[in-house]
Amino acid sequence: MREIWVLRLGHRPARDKRVTTHVALAARAFGAKGILVTTKDPELERTVRGVVGRFGGDFEIRTGVEKWKEFMRQFDGEVVHLTMYGIHVDDAISRMSSEKVLVVVGADKVPPEAYQLATFNVAVGNQPHSEVAALAVFLDRLAGGGGLRKEFRGRVRILPCERGKRVEDDSE
Amino acid sequence: MREIWVLRLGHRPARDKRVTTHVALAARAFGAKGILVTTKDPELERTVRGVVGRFGGDFEIRTGVEKWKEFMRQFDGEVVHLTMYGIHVDDAISRMSSEKVLVVVGADKVPPEAYQLATFNVAVGNQPHSEVAALAVFLDRLAGGGGLRKEFRGRVRILPCERGKRVEDDSE
Repeated sequence: MREIWVLRLGHRPARDKRVTTHVALAARAFGAKGILVTTKDPELERTVRGVVGRFGGDFEIRTGVEKWKEFMRQFDGEVVHLTMYGIHVDDAISRMSSEKVLVVVGADKVPPEAYQLATFNVAVGNQPHSEVAALAVFLDRLAGGGGLRKEFRGRVRILPCERGKRVEDDSE
Repeated sequence: MREIWVLRLGHRPARDKRVTTHVALAARAFGAKGILVTTKDPELERTVRGVVGRFGGDFEIRTGVEKWKEFMRQFDGEVVHLTMYGIHVDDAISRMSSEKVLVVVGADKVPPEAYQLATFNVAVGNQPHSEVAALAVFLDRLAGGGGLRKEFRGRVRILPCERGKRVEDDSE
């Protein structure tokens, strides 16, 4: 099982609050170990840690990671930058070999250095859509579909159900 | 090839503007025919039509579709409601047989009727994450990975590229 980290570039707390929360929660749900966000955002940290506290797993979040170029440069694994300008996701995955992967997703316009520092610039389709969608589909394909069967063993557990809701909550 | 429509429930223009835009663009990129949004939102329509105008395809958007219960009831195909409380996506897809599919994604809390009117309530993982991620991964898995190879033949075309950007634009 690969160890996957996500780096979110250019997060603007007021404007990107919800989309970055979606990025972080998708990263967790699809099996990543944690997310690093370039801008400091205590509220985002609180939200994500709240979900981890209730639903389990050991997902980490760190915000205010300003030296992202250094981080990309020194990462001891493959660095995948998701961009609609990159190579097709299947072509990239077939070339990946490292057990440790950093997935970089930008908010607004991504600085050229990100393209240069990445091992692979990867397009989940060469169409404009969403970094949340791109991240989830990339992680889903990278795991060969296995990522969604991960057990989180949280205090709150949702059980698959045809209609309505089945929730187990140890704190109740 | 299945004909896929997306229905977005409970969109609040001010709060959900960006997330619903991501939902619409992900629907388009992963091969859906169009999106219906329950709340009127001319700005959202403009944004999505702008992308279609530049990048191609015949994706439709209609907002202000208030009678969503009727629409779900009368839809002549299978209705898939994406919710973290549902059955596993793979279990649902293996049971699907219709060539016409409506995928329902909620914004905030989804009314109980949506669970009742759906043919399948489907969880892309029983963890909280993102309706954008859930929609993209569902459509990706439903297409067996084929959705991303669709040709849009737009005025603007992005060509896969190892580093940097390669764009063809007929209007330049």
